[in-house]
Amino acid sequence: MTNTQLSLIQIDNYGPWTVTPEPRREMDLQTLQSRLFADLAQFVGSRDGYVFFTRFDNMVAVTNGLDESDHELMQESIGNRYPVSISLGIGVDPSPVDALETATTGLQRAGSAQDGDRREVLAGTTLAERERTPTDLQIAHFDVNDATGKYTDQLNEFDSFIHIEQGYASLMRHLREEHGALSFFVGGDNIISVCPEMREEAYRSAIDHVEGDVGVELKVGVGVADDVQEAGMVAKHALEECRHRGTVVEIETPRPDVELAED
Amino acid sequence: MTNTQLSLIQIDNYGPWTVTPEPRREMDLQTLQSRLFADLAQFVGSRDGYVFFTRFDNMVAVTNGLDESDHELMQESIGNRYPVSISLGIGVDPSPVDALETATTGLQRAGSAQDGDRREVLAGTTLAERERTPTDLQIAHFDVNDATGKYTDQLNEFDSFIHIEQGYASLMRHLREEHGALSFFVGGDNIISVCPEMREEAYRSAIDHVEGDVGVELKVGVGVADDVQEAGMVAKHALEECRHRGTVVEIETPRPDVELAED
Amino acid sequence: MTNTQLSLIQIDNYGPWTVTPEPRREMDLQTLQSRLFADLAQFVGSRDGYVFFTRFDNMVAVTNGLDESDHELMQESIGNRYPVSISLGIGVDPSPVDALETATTGLQRAGSAQDGDRREVLAGTTLAERERTPTDLQIAHFDVNDATGKYTDQLNEFDSFIHIEQGYASLMRHLREEHGALSFFVGGDNIISVCPEMREEAYRSAIDHVEGDVGVELKVGVGVADDVQEAGMVAKHALEECRHRGTVVEIETPRPDVELAED
Amino acid sequence: MTNTQLSLIQIDNYGPWTVTPEPRREMDLQTLQSRLFADLAQFVGSRDGYVFFTRFDNMVAVTNGLDESDHELMQESIGNRYPVSISLGIGVDPSPVDALETATTGLQRAGSAQDGDRREVLAGTTLAERERTPTDLQIAHFDVNDATGKYTDQLNEFDSFIHIEQGYASLMRHLREEHGALSFFVGGDNIISVCPEMREEAYRSAIDHVEGDVGVELKVGVGVADDVQEAGMVAKHALEECRHRGTVVEIETPRPDVELAED
Repeated sequence: MTNTQLSLIQIDNYGPWTVTPEPRREMDLQTLQSRLFADLAQFVGSRDGYVFFTRFDNMVAVTNGLDESDHELMQESIGNRYPVSISLGIGVDPSPVDALETATTGLQRAGSAQDGDRREVLAGTTLAERERTPTDLQIAHFDVNDATGKYTDQLNEFDSFIHIEQGYASLMRHLREEHGALSFFVGGDNIISVCPEMREEAYRSAIDHVEGDVGVELKVGVGVADDVQEAGMVAKHALEECRHRGTVVEIETPRPDVELAED
Repeated sequence: MTNTQLSLIQIDNYGPWTVTPEPRREMDLQTLQSRLFADLAQFVGSRDGYVFFTRFDNMVAVTNGLDESDHELMQESIGNRYPVSISLGIGVDPSPVDALETATTGLQRAGSAQDGDRREVLAGTTLAERERTPTDLQIAHFDVNDATGKYTDQLNEFDSFIHIEQGYASLMRHLREEHGALSFFVGGDNIISVCPEMREEAYRSAIDHVEGDVGVELKVGVGVADDVQEAGMVAKHALEECRHRGTVVEIETPRPDVELAED
Repeated sequence: MTNTQLSLIQIDNYGPWTVTPEPRREMDLQTLQSRLFADLAQFVGSRDGYVFFTRFDNMVAVTNGLDESDHELMQESIGNRYPVSISLGIGVDPSPVDALETATTGLQRAGSAQDGDRREVLAGTTLAERERTPTDLQIAHFDVNDATGKYTDQLNEFDSFIHIEQGYASLMRHLREEHGALSFFVGGDNIISVCPEMREEAYRSAIDHVEGDVGVELKVGVGVADDVQEAGMVAKHALEECRHRGTVVEIETPRPDVELAED
Repeated sequence: MTNTQLSLIQIDNYGPWTVTPEPRREMDLQTLQSRLFADLAQFVGSRDGYVFFTRFDNMVAVTNGLDESDHELMQESIGNRYPVSISLGIGVDPSPVDALETATTGLQRAGSAQDGDRREVLAGTTLAERERTPTDLQIAHFDVNDATGKYTDQLNEFDSFIHIEQGYASLMRHLREEHGALSFFVGGDNIISVCPEMREEAYRSAIDHVEGDVGVELKVGVGVADDVQEAGMVAKHALEECRHRGTVVEIETPRPDVELAED
């Protein structure tokens, strides 16, 4: 069974800051947002977690392996180097969307995202080291079949982009509604989903749904491990297996003795 | 009438690079993608252009005011500081999607995005200084009404995100299909669209469409100028007008004597 | 004759900021300082200027080709993206140290570097476009003969470093006292000097002085042009000539018709 | 007694890379060097170590608390995101200069810094967790008395810089020759030294030496701990004590029960 630790990262009072005393140059905001995300990706990534840029002022991170002091350090370092500060909410649950619900609620209780006084909240509790297991994370890495051949080298970039976005929108809704899984577009034609325990049929079914819904063909590699870096890397390798074998779904665990339990 | 100069920025051979000799750490890829985008945003932004992250391996920039030597310098500087290189295609047209079509075709003719030999292409011609006019760019800045109150402070972050994504997907398709306008999510609850000449009814109509389609309420500020930095800043101020007045559409030009021509 | 435009970049109130409310993590300060420098290097460098990190809270830039609005934009962009702001002083003079004197005085008149109220000063006047000439900048690029063979591959890194530092300290003092030239260590075993008009004997003399003073052997390439990027690149190529020919001083101008005037 | 773990970070084949196929834009090299340093400062700093930029192509890090897998990860991440790679040598010794000697020798044995084939060496052994003690690191944080009043607000920036450089050069040589301590300029008027066990008289003596040698007046805060982040932060607080009390040397340990042993 999975046990996902999710951390919601929210920039404090960002909306008002971007227009006070008056609107700031858009490219400076884009630069700040992207570099803040990159720094968080490095900090969390070097501890074997993942961060997804999501809405940039709100970012979702998978943080199995990071404890409260890691979260505090992340906050302190950002506060020292940026003109904004961040609040963090943490949640742990076998269901990713429920973990995020807990993380979000922790922040919401402390105050609004645009509360002029709410700064650097740290809410929630991390998963204790002794409670971690080799099946805590199930990560699925999807990509679009032959995106380069079908879209990038054929259509103008915006129409390629619309196809990818539709595929993403369809998959994100289906996986969240059917399984409580959270899906994130990560660039190119790639989507990474943080899943609860799901079996092969669930992935085939999701892929069929997206093809029927918007006509975009996906394939997927799935990995299971005790942290998201390892599960995600196993998923990447599984996706390469799909590419080489011409298959649609490949599921791998790093430890062959670990069985995916029935749900 | 508008005259949009768009530059398509494409990382050379990126798909293969990310998995050769074997898949790279996802957080390193996220960091590289984001920081590359940030650098382009600063380079183009300091010359009064805009860059949108789009798919990260393919990015769309509005580059009225940048000439061929600016594009060459951008390429050279990236080539000196990143483990990847970029190819650039440029197009100019009153219709944004047609400008992007030209830009994309210029690149596609030079070779596939995954062509092992295609590196640092520079295709297309920039708009001559003497041909620029005060109505070349029409920029619309949309945001979701009371996103913080309705979503961020109420739902878990993923469900807030789904709502924003649906609003974006609906708007992007409508504006592209009806007007050839290109829309980009820029973080938070903000979408910026690069538009051809459009009048107030077209914006009201787009907003009504999105509300009917997915139940997301938008408002918009629109600006017109000879470069996207100015048009976009005017649009931001116009959006603040919406916020203060409680209106849905506000259109402003920096030069009161400039009339929006009939289409 | 040279005509150097120098801009002094000073972080406002930095000393107090680094210890308020209490001392900040050193590695966060190092990161902020280095990335601020890198951003300025990109902004100024993309306009064919140079920035030297100097003391990090005070940086010296060669800005022939940048006007007041470029300086204002640089300030605005930094102010939007960092937790600190910068003040700028500009000076123009055939003698680099005198240009810097003017730049520094302009700032000092506006208030102390640690004045809690002084923020984002912009003092001084840039060189008018019509007054620029092909001999405005004379840039010398020095490196240590066989640094890798003599130091890096032989001594422990700190003792290599001490040798390079001694060579730098000796050269910087000599060139400033004898010629009003400003020298900056730029990494490795490289020093770049911003010089007034100086002839070959002056460079040989400086090299002899450093060898006699501290036993470090230098060679130098010199370039002359209307902007520092071009003069500096010519100097780099001239240094490669030294390397290939085994010479000690190589002086090149990009335009063979330009004579170095007598001093 | 101290026990310093130092890691030497060396960019592979950098000299040749900067001029192949021909010399690269100086500002791009400066940007690359500074951002590489900043990334290392964040990686090492978040594990409670320090990195000093030193010569940028060769950097010295204090890495008590980082093990071999941390070093490997640092190398892998840099290799994924930069156009250059890094080699690492590690050494542990009560004397900082001897630790660096070991670290450097480990690299030198594997091949020259400019060896076209040497890439991503990892030489040496880290300090085992069970062998760490609360007095492993002794860190001294020096600054120049009233640098702002005496230099920054009075002289042109280069002459201020010359004074600070002279003070640094004098201190770095004295501490290395007398004690095997390694000193690094970290910006502004600040120097951080990695020291072996040294008592108050040794610091007073160093300060007197620098004043007599070059006329620059220093004060110092010293901290002792099991990692450099803590020792360094204690040293910063001790320096604030000097500032408030008007004293010249302040030595603090975070654990009052820890005595500085006699040497």
